[in-house]
Amino acid sequence: MTRPTLTGSPDSVPTVELDDLLESGDLELIDRWLAQAGVVQIADELSRLPREQRAVPFRLLGKDRALEVFELLDPSLQQELLEGLRDTSVRQLFEGLDPDDRARLTEEMPAKVARRLLAGLSPNERQLTATLLGYAEDSAGRLMSPEVASLRAGMSAADALNRLRRIGRSAETIYALPVTDDQRRLVGALGLRDLVLAEPTTPVGELMDTDVYSARVDADQEEVARLIREADLLALPIVDTEDRLVGIVTVDDAMEVLEEEETEDVARGGGAEPLGRPYLTTSVLQIARSRVVWLLFLIVAATLTVNVLQLFEETLNRVVTLALFIPLIIGTGGNTGAQAATTVTRALAVGEVRFDDLGIVVLREARVGLLLGAMLGLLTLGPAWVFAGREIGIVVSLTLLAVCTLAAFVGAFLPLVARRVGVDPAVMSAPFITTLVDASGLIIYFLIARTVLAL
Amino acid sequence: MTRPTLTGSPDSVPTVELDDLLESGDLELIDRWLAQAGVVQIADELSRLPREQRAVPFRLLGKDRALEVFELLDPSLQQELLEGLRDTSVRQLFEGLDPDDRARLTEEMPAKVARRLLAGLSPNERQLTATLLGYAEDSAGRLMSPEVASLRAGMSAADALNRLRRIGRSAETIYALPVTDDQRRLVGALGLRDLVLAEPTTPVGELMDTDVYSARVDADQEEVARLIREADLLALPIVDTEDRLVGIVTVDDAMEVLEEEETEDVARGGGAEPLGRPYLTTSVLQIARSRVVWLLFLIVAATLTVNVLQLFEETLNRVVTLALFIPLIIGTGGNTGAQAATTVTRALAVGEVRFDDLGIVVLREARVGLLLGAMLGLLTLGPAWVFAGREIGIVVSLTLLAVCTLAAFVGAFLPLVARRVGVDPAVMSAPFITTLVDASGLIIYFLIARTVLAL
Repeated sequence: MTRPTLTGSPDSVPTVELDDLLESGDLELIDRWLAQAGVVQIADELSRLPREQRAVPFRLLGKDRALEVFELLDPSLQQELLEGLRDTSVRQLFEGLDPDDRARLTEEMPAKVARRLLAGLSPNERQLTATLLGYAEDSAGRLMSPEVASLRAGMSAADALNRLRRIGRSAETIYALPVTDDQRRLVGALGLRDLVLAEPTTPVGELMDTDVYSARVDADQEEVARLIREADLLALPIVDTEDRLVGIVTVDDAMEVLEEEETEDVARGGGAEPLGRPYLTTSVLQIARSRVVWLLFLIVAATLTVNVLQLFEETLNRVVTLALFIPLIIGTGGNTGAQAATTVTRALAVGEVRFDDLGIVVLREARVGLLLGAMLGLLTLGPAWVFAGREIGIVVSLTLLAVCTLAAFVGAFLPLVARRVGVDPAVMSAPFITTLVDASGLIIYFLIARTVLAL
Repeated sequence: MTRPTLTGSPDSVPTVELDDLLESGDLELIDRWLAQAGVVQIADELSRLPREQRAVPFRLLGKDRALEVFELLDPSLQQELLEGLRDTSVRQLFEGLDPDDRARLTEEMPAKVARRLLAGLSPNERQLTATLLGYAEDSAGRLMSPEVASLRAGMSAADALNRLRRIGRSAETIYALPVTDDQRRLVGALGLRDLVLAEPTTPVGELMDTDVYSARVDADQEEVARLIREADLLALPIVDTEDRLVGIVTVDDAMEVLEEEETEDVARGGGAEPLGRPYLTTSVLQIARSRVVWLLFLIVAATLTVNVLQLFEETLNRVVTLALFIPLIIGTGGNTGAQAATTVTRALAVGEVRFDDLGIVVLREARVGLLLGAMLGLLTLGPAWVFAGREIGIVVSLTLLAVCTLAAFVGAFLPLVARRVGVDPAVMSAPFITTLVDASGLIIYFLIARTVLAL
């Protein structure tokens, strides 16, 4: 799937790819490629190159485009790129970044490199970065930019526009304009749209909305980002404990936080830790490391199934046919459990369900499981009967009914409990639920078998 | 988890919940609760109420707040709410919506209700909605708003601001301003920020960026939304086949498209179809329906395992102990496959990997699988030896090595192939990979067992 329908010059890119050009080593061709490609595409291509090849095309970009591309890169790649560039060019680049982006970068950098970079900044810029670094990790203080353009209620719309023309260049955004009193306390906010559309003489105090969202510097970044998305805000003012305006978080920074969180949830949902960097730049060892802890945990849990089966070895010895249905039964249980867990985890993530709803959700999922189990049980009765005789057909059929109900119940219960005790609900993933349901499914299977077959 | 750190009036909400107040039937209390709650919270609470209880609190909201709350609701709930309200109030609400939101709503509405609603619009508003409805579903044309504020290159900054003051109120956004020539062809774009910060006499042609992103009306909504997110745009101009400006897509609409897509991916990743509406308002039957097709497909695929085991029934009869390790082996294979599939599907979704990378990705995952399999095989050798003897220990150990390698390979291969043939890669989910790997894992297990045990 290419982008045939996207038009405009940033997309009318050549079909040759950057890595092929780098192989050829023809700098002029690379230069021409870079001139024709959009910044998003350049960033994409850089992310796909091996580490040592990234510096060359990056150095060929003009200063402004280099900064644009740099800001689009993953933080881990930004860091590697900085380490690879010579001192003076690093400083230029660093000075041009927004303070909040700079802080995020510094945090993930070895102390030595960070010190070297901070040394290159003007006192004003350095102080901004340091202030940011004072706030706790994952707090709104780290995400916000302190370069906020604020207004006073007494100004006229024309005064406000003049003020913006003076101070607006260094502000993170001027689309959302917090309004403060003379103690810098937040009293309202105004969109640039309303300011531009207003009669020039109208005072800001009349234009502003006094019923505005804000968040404290120590608020959780993810909650702040969700609020921005749910309320469709362009930016959210950040205040200290005394309600004084200290910064602003913009929608694009919020989206990045949410995407990172989403990637984490997806990885855990598949039974692995997030890689934290683009896939193609991650080594085989790093990928294996992100999965091994989970896999070890799951295989230890799976030894439970060996013990359960050993308990019923005598039954198995007498009716080996029972073994034939083991994968089908635990597989179906696992799938039903995974479905319930995925649905409930997602509903929790987007706020459609809370822990208070435990009773309703668990009961509802158990009913869904019963319904699905009854259907699957009825459908398999015939084929299993023909294949393995009436008794075993009945055993398989009844087991599916019971296992599906149990699996859906467990799949709904565990994510809710995880959220309650402060664990990421995505950890209660398909692999986790499957392993857990396997052992109990086997017990149910053999108990039903013993009863029906009168063993 | 409440929101202790979010401050400002919309969050200083009472601890009582809306459903409790509705039980009590005290309208005055409900009114007071609504006055104190923020629009996001009201929308949240409405989503959690049963259908017939939603109209009352909604009618108690003032017209402006009602519209704000309405726009935050899920489209399926918007529709139910409209059906439940009396005609005149419905019309007021509908007239106040943005045309693109209105189109999305109309599309999902029974034809009769849609006609009734369209009848209530002014001719101008109705034409806008109809134009939108002419474009294909999931195209940018459906997502965009035709109410776009555009400028001409010859205007001065002051002229442009005056023009915005005149026409800006009805525009979807004035933060991103496309610039056109006299044939309405897109020639550049300008952020409101740059316009406000500019000297009043500077011509728009000097301020605008000529190297701008745009998309065609027939472009895929999801690609458009991804472009907006990747390039950090506030809005994207939409053009027709002759490059004439026809509308604009804003960042908040793009975010909604991406969230919907993400929800779909997550659901499919868990082996189910997305519900398409908030969890608590979905009936047990609807939930079961979203899962049953997948479950049926998976159980039919799982019958393959029964057939495989039947092939080896003789071997099983001789060494029943082999049956004890079946769940552990297929479980571990399934987990390794799910990890690989989840990682690759996510990398595809965020654009870190393309089909061209098939060779690299598959080889890399096979190496990860080999590494993990070798480790798990070594770790289980001891315990399995003690538990079931040297031969079976070796069989289990070798099988884990082979199954992990195979599972990681298949888990990486299938999502890439799915993308290539135009199927959603998320469909190659954990449950799907697990079921597929189960049968081949069993074959490997018994072939190794026959060889080692010399059966």
